[in-house]
Amino acid sequence: MAAMDLLPVVSEPAACCTPAAAPTISADDATRLARTLKAMADPTRLRLLSLIAAHEGGEACVCDLIEPVGLSQPTVSHHLKQLTEAGLVTREKRGVWAYFTIVPGAVDAVTQHLGAHLTVHAEG
Amino acid sequence: MAAMDLLPVVSEPAACCTPAAAPTISADDATRLARTLKAMADPTRLRLLSLIAAHEGGEACVCDLIEPVGLSQPTVSHHLKQLTEAGLVTREKRGVWAYFTIVPGAVDAVTQHLGAHLTVHAEG
Repeated sequence: MAAMDLLPVVSEPAACCTPAAAPTISADDATRLARTLKAMADPTRLRLLSLIAAHEGGEACVCDLIEPVGLSQPTVSHHLKQLTEAGLVTREKRGVWAYFTIVPGAVDAVTQHLGAHLTVHAEG
Repeated sequence: MAAMDLLPVVSEPAACCTPAAAPTISADDATRLARTLKAMADPTRLRLLSLIAAHEGGEACVCDLIEPVGLSQPTVSHHLKQLTEAGLVTREKRGVWAYFTIVPGAVDAVTQHLGAHLTVHAEG
């Protein structure tokens, strides 16, 4: 019977299963994006990123970041290390202080991925 | 000596300390944003969000999400629960299946916060 070609082997509820209508994020991109989001997903690290971005040229001395977040220098340095390892900021030692600079485009890359893959687009 | 008025009480390297030149994220906003980012910061949850967003109308049956991510139904349901609790998707039971829908504007709110607070803006 021709109908056999159209029927699934096991019977399933009528509404199931619809394939995705648009391209979805790849497993590799999801892994990379998750790693960056995890580095950002902490109130102190978000405040540190925001403070650095708000300084002239997107660069701030660690000495200017401790008082606003109200934590000890070792704790702040630990958070800054995580942001550096995630590629969100770079670190440069000048004299006695370390300076942290926002990596241009790093946050934009995150927002572009979120916009491209995680929001509902108009149906074509 | 007049120079005394210009010197700090304790001597510090010349470049320190510069206040932030632009408004920074508030502690409350940072806490809320961190919570949402944490819910998103997992490869499986990113792929689930992407799959749901790619389905027509931004709605997908849980039955359509299990095979693409290659995990068991309990594991997928656990991740979907975290996305629901974070306000990124809503859940509706219809017949034997649960359907998940992208919350309109939820991801946009995240990207707007990231763009407003974590990127370097032109100096005024």
